[in-house]
Amino acid sequence: MKLATLNDGTRDGQLMVVSRDLKTAQLADGVARTLQRALDDWSFIAPQLDAIYQELNQGRGRRTFAFEPARCMAPLPRAFQWADGSAYVHHVELVRKARGAELPAAFWEDPLMYQGGSDDFIGPCDDIALFHEEWGIDFEAEVAVITDDVPMGATPDQAHQRIRLLMLVNDVSLRNLIPEELAKGFGFVQSKPATSFSPVAVTPDELGDAWKGGKVHLPLHSTWNGKLVGKPQAGVDMVFNFPQLLAHLAKSRNVRAGSIIGSGTVSNTDGKRGYSCIAEQRCVEMIADGVASTPFMAFGDTIRIEMFDSDGKSIFGAIDQKVTQAGV
Amino acid sequence: MKLATLNDGTRDGQLMVVSRDLKTAQLADGVARTLQRALDDWSFIAPQLDAIYQELNQGRGRRTFAFEPARCMAPLPRAFQWADGSAYVHHVELVRKARGAELPAAFWEDPLMYQGGSDDFIGPCDDIALFHEEWGIDFEAEVAVITDDVPMGATPDQAHQRIRLLMLVNDVSLRNLIPEELAKGFGFVQSKPATSFSPVAVTPDELGDAWKGGKVHLPLHSTWNGKLVGKPQAGVDMVFNFPQLLAHLAKSRNVRAGSIIGSGTVSNTDGKRGYSCIAEQRCVEMIADGVASTPFMAFGDTIRIEMFDSDGKSIFGAIDQKVTQAGV
Repeated sequence: MKLATLNDGTRDGQLMVVSRDLKTAQLADGVARTLQRALDDWSFIAPQLDAIYQELNQGRGRRTFAFEPARCMAPLPRAFQWADGSAYVHHVELVRKARGAELPAAFWEDPLMYQGGSDDFIGPCDDIALFHEEWGIDFEAEVAVITDDVPMGATPDQAHQRIRLLMLVNDVSLRNLIPEELAKGFGFVQSKPATSFSPVAVTPDELGDAWKGGKVHLPLHSTWNGKLVGKPQAGVDMVFNFPQLLAHLAKSRNVRAGSIIGSGTVSNTDGKRGYSCIAEQRCVEMIADGVASTPFMAFGDTIRIEMFDSDGKSIFGAIDQKVTQAGV
Repeated sequence: MKLATLNDGTRDGQLMVVSRDLKTAQLADGVARTLQRALDDWSFIAPQLDAIYQELNQGRGRRTFAFEPARCMAPLPRAFQWADGSAYVHHVELVRKARGAELPAAFWEDPLMYQGGSDDFIGPCDDIALFHEEWGIDFEAEVAVITDDVPMGATPDQAHQRIRLLMLVNDVSLRNLIPEELAKGFGFVQSKPATSFSPVAVTPDELGDAWKGGKVHLPLHSTWNGKLVGKPQAGVDMVFNFPQLLAHLAKSRNVRAGSIIGSGTVSNTDGKRGYSCIAEQRCVEMIADGVASTPFMAFGDTIRIEMFDSDGKSIFGAIDQKVTQAGV
């Protein structure tokens, strides 16, 4: 099943069911007005949404319209939780190596995770509007899950059963604000502006064999200013799978329905697969040449993030954004 | 105006208007079903809630019932944002001093703030249920504001005008998990379990002269196992007022309606005012005696957090909780 949220001018938008080929959509208003409502009562609502989905795929939808990603908000335009892991430890190792620091051995066993702002997500085609290029604007291509309720103390196996949807993320980061902010010791606030998500969130069964062991076994494509800069395998080098990330988050508190948990920047040890954020490329350059030559994003730059199935068909639709100057 | 949320078995509860003396309440269902709904359209909804409030205070309410804090959820049972400042820098300084570290000078000019989990708040009289005493269970008594939309780049003066409600917070912390978690560099996840809030959230005008300069000028009472252990003045030693904390949060992103921003543990340089968290008392002991003698909370311990006006009347009702062992 594929779900998206139509921008109708309200804060939470309207839930729609989208056909597998991403061509048509139908409002789910008779079933659940918003995606959060559906997640709040998933076992009751999901079968009703699935009935619409089956009709759509068979060309039998009754109130269908063309699906347009540009009219989408994030699947959850605002959420009660956004927690982002750093499951591709290779990425963390590179960042450390570039500044001459060792990776603590515990990082291979204990997931790194930060709590992000979730009150103001932006849609897949919305501009990334920021005040200053000097903040060091970077994209971060990731995969994320949306969960049902996960009780405190859940094991990874229990958490696995509570994953309801998957989507793609652009976890925009302000690289030049990060060092000072992290040095204060309390994590990210100003250095993580509004996060964007793929047009569509999909149930795990949509991935077929590519959803295995709590990971997505497909490459994630990042295209910066029209040039493909990365296609790392999201199923490779993911040291902690989604169930493990979820169990980490649920150690001392309940995780409630509609929580979004991110994978962190997808990154492979095989450098030929390219990169999912500019910072990683700059680290590679630092280690090789002693100087980072690739600049961060400029106003006017575009970034497209997308994942294709084995037949080359887009699964989630594309995150396709432009960086603009805010307040002008 | 005073607002609270009745626990009716749903995830967001039902909004109720509470009389100034906290004795009676009336459901606001004809106006806004939940507090988030009211905040989503505050300028339209607030006057209607205020009309109910005036009737309640004049004993003219039409469907009133006795107000019972034990039947309350947090005013926002789940929120789209919970960001907690550390505005009482004296507290941060003490913690550092106890471990022999200097406070960076920038901490007096640049607020320390962390992004908290907001999907699973607990009510004012709900148990603090945790698996292990060994995690170092501590309360943290704070004041918090709930905001309307605050645009990215807002000045403190602009942010000031967007503060809609105030309430009290128990920002429960797991002290023995904090050092290792913060050492990882990405802030708090496991060391901050579910946060609790006062039964009632109030509009700033309810505080009269005590709301001045973006601070609450009243003492905050913390009573641990029936013994008053702290009554620091919340308006004293607050280095960053709420508008400054909000402007800090809004530097690089919009802050959306229903965001909760906390003051951090209320703390005075005058040690005679006691403490708002056990960790602070332990720091004082460390500095004086070289050893912390006051233990953290045990299962069965109670904590009551309350604030009174100049006539001795409770403003927000009391946070009144017991620590229990989860899963037994």
